[in-house]
Amino acid sequence: MFQPIQLKNNRIYIIDQTLLPFEEKWIEIQSAEDMYEAIKNLRIRGAPALGIAGILGLWSGVCKQTSLSGKNFLELLNQTGDYLKSARPTAVNLFWAIDRGIQCLYKNTTHSPKEMADKLLKEALDIWEEDIQTCRLIGEHGNSIIEPGNTILTHCNAGALATGAYGTALSVIYTAHRSGKNIHVFVDETRPLLQGGRLTTWELLKNNVPCTLICDNMAAHTIKTRNVNLIITGADRIALNGDTANKIGTYNLGIIARYHNIPLYIAAPLSTFDENTSSGESITIEQRDPGEIRQIYGKPCAPSSVPVYNPAFDIIPHSLVTGYITEEGIYCASKIPGLLQKKLQKEQKNV
Amino acid sequence: MFQPIQLKNNRIYIIDQTLLPFEEKWIEIQSAEDMYEAIKNLRIRGAPALGIAGILGLWSGVCKQTSLSGKNFLELLNQTGDYLKSARPTAVNLFWAIDRGIQCLYKNTTHSPKEMADKLLKEALDIWEEDIQTCRLIGEHGNSIIEPGNTILTHCNAGALATGAYGTALSVIYTAHRSGKNIHVFVDETRPLLQGGRLTTWELLKNNVPCTLICDNMAAHTIKTRNVNLIITGADRIALNGDTANKIGTYNLGIIARYHNIPLYIAAPLSTFDENTSSGESITIEQRDPGEIRQIYGKPCAPSSVPVYNPAFDIIPHSLVTGYITEEGIYCASKIPGLLQKKLQKEQKNV
Repeated sequence: MFQPIQLKNNRIYIIDQTLLPFEEKWIEIQSAEDMYEAIKNLRIRGAPALGIAGILGLWSGVCKQTSLSGKNFLELLNQTGDYLKSARPTAVNLFWAIDRGIQCLYKNTTHSPKEMADKLLKEALDIWEEDIQTCRLIGEHGNSIIEPGNTILTHCNAGALATGAYGTALSVIYTAHRSGKNIHVFVDETRPLLQGGRLTTWELLKNNVPCTLICDNMAAHTIKTRNVNLIITGADRIALNGDTANKIGTYNLGIIARYHNIPLYIAAPLSTFDENTSSGESITIEQRDPGEIRQIYGKPCAPSSVPVYNPAFDIIPHSLVTGYITEEGIYCASKIPGLLQKKLQKEQKNV
Repeated sequence: MFQPIQLKNNRIYIIDQTLLPFEEKWIEIQSAEDMYEAIKNLRIRGAPALGIAGILGLWSGVCKQTSLSGKNFLELLNQTGDYLKSARPTAVNLFWAIDRGIQCLYKNTTHSPKEMADKLLKEALDIWEEDIQTCRLIGEHGNSIIEPGNTILTHCNAGALATGAYGTALSVIYTAHRSGKNIHVFVDETRPLLQGGRLTTWELLKNNVPCTLICDNMAAHTIKTRNVNLIITGADRIALNGDTANKIGTYNLGIIARYHNIPLYIAAPLSTFDENTSSGESITIEQRDPGEIRQIYGKPCAPSSVPVYNPAFDIIPHSLVTGYITEEGIYCASKIPGLLQKKLQKEQKNV
C-alpha cells in the first residue's frame, strides 16, 4: 500500500510530488519550517494528505521543545499551528487537522510538554489511520459497481498521493484491480497542471493497473470508440443537493457521460460534503494564474498578451451524477441530507 | 487581409507557422526543395493552404528550366509533382492542386516550356483566388447567424493560416467583427498540438478580435458561466449524411453544445464534403505519435512508459450539427446530397 507520507522511527518522510513522475525523491521533514516549505510548494497536496501533513508538521515543530514550561509549550503550539496554516490559507483540511491536534491537548492541560507531544503524535496517527480506513471503505463500496472487464475513465488525481493511502476514485480502481476484475483505466491528462498525466498515470503504473493516457478533449471519442463503461472522479466539495465542485473538466465529463448513457460516480469521504452549502450556485470558483495556461513548465505555449480564463474547478450538477461513493456506502443525491444528519448525530454522540 | 503565403515580384514567401506565435518569420521559397521542406515540417499547414503551396512549389521547381525541350519539361513537371506530394502523403488538397496544375498544361502540349510555366503560375493564382473567394463567401454567409454582442467558442485553427486568406470558421468571426457586431471569442487551446493556443489566438490578436484562451476541458464551464451563444469550428471531411471529421475535441463540443441548447456550426468549403463517404462510420481516424501527449515542446509531461491513445480527429454526428456554413450558403444535414448534386452538375457544365 503506497503512502505519500511515511513515518519511520519517528522521522517523517514525504515524496516530493513536484518531481513526479520523473523522479521519486523522499524528503525528510525535520521541522515545522520543512513542512511549511513542502506544503507551500505543493511537494505534498490533496485535502486529506494536507491534513495529515499539517498535524505531523505541528508535532515536528514542538516535539523537541519539551523542556519548555507547559504555558510556553502551548504558546509555541499555537504559533506553529498558525504558521503552518499560512502555507495554504484555503486548505480547509489543513486547518481542521491542526485545530484538532491543538484542541486535544487543551482537554487536559495538566500534562507535561513531553506527554502533550506524545499525545499530539497519537492524534496525528489517529487522523492518518481514520483517513486510510475511510479511503479503504470507499474502495470497497465502490468496487460493488465495477463489473469484470470494465473500462473506467478518471480525471485529475484522486489517488493515494492526495490522501493517507489508496485515494478516493483511485481506491475504487485499486480495489477492483486487486480483486482480479481485469479493468482498464483511461486517464484524462487534466490541463492545465496535468495532475492526471503526471500523478495518476504514475500511481496506476506503480500498482500495475492497466491504463492509457488521453488529452481531456479526447473523452467523448474514447468513450464511444473504446467502450468506456463508467467515469469515476473525486470531489473538492459536495453541496447538500449533490452539486459537486471538482477539478475543471469534470462538468464536461458529466455531460459527455449522460450523452453516452454511462454512469458517472463521485468518490469522496463524508468530510467533503458541506451541509452549509445548499447547492453549487453558492460555491465560489477559484480563478488561477493565466500563466498556467500560457506556459507549460515555464515555456510559452500561447501569445503572452492573450487574455486567459483559468477556473480551477467547475460544478457538476447533481442531475449528472449517478451516485456518491462514500465510506458509508453509495448514495444518490436525494439521500445526502439524511446521510449528513446521521453523521452529525454520530459525531455529537462521540463528543 | 492576412495571407500565410505571399507572392511579390514572382517571389514566394510563407510565414513559418512552427515559430508562431513567438516569432513572425517569412521564408522565401526559391525551389521545389524549399517548399517540400516547408510542407514536410509543417511550416505551412491546413488543407487549402497546402493546395496553394503545392502548386506554387511545382511552379517554383520548373519555372527556371524553360530551356528544356517540351518533353523534358513535362517530365520534370511530373517528377516535381510526385516529389512535392510525398511531403504530406495524406494531404488530399496538396494532391488535388498539383494534379490540377499538371493537367492544365496537358490540355495544349504545343506550348513552349516558357508558356507552360506562365500558364502554371496562372493556374496557381486561380486556385488561390478561388480559395480566397470561397473563404470570403463562407464568412459572409456565416455572418448572417451572428447577433450583435455574441460570444463564440472555436476549436483548433480554422483560420487564415490554414487557407489562402480569411479561413473558414475564423472567416465568419472576422466578418462579424469587421461589421461591428462587438463579438467575443473563446479559443480552445486544442491539445495535443495547441493550434488554438498558438495559432488562433495569434490571428485573432493580430486582427484585434477580442478573445480569451481556455483549456479544452473548460468548455462546458465557460459556456455556462460566460454566456457563450454558439460554437463554430472547421472540418477536415464531411460525409454525405453530415457526419463531420474534425480536430479531436469537436465531438466533445457537439455534446456540450447540445446539453446547453446552443447551436454548433461547421464552416467548410464544398470541397470538404465527400460524396463517396456515406457516413462518419467509414472515416478512418489517424492515430498519431504518443510522444505528442507524453511530451510538450520536447519536455516530458507524463511517464515515458505510459500507453497513450492519440486520435488526430473525431467524428461529430450530424445530429449534433446545427448547420454547415459553405460558400453557397448555410445548409442542414439533410440538404447535403442535393447541394453536392448541384455542385457536380455545375462542374460538369464547366468542363
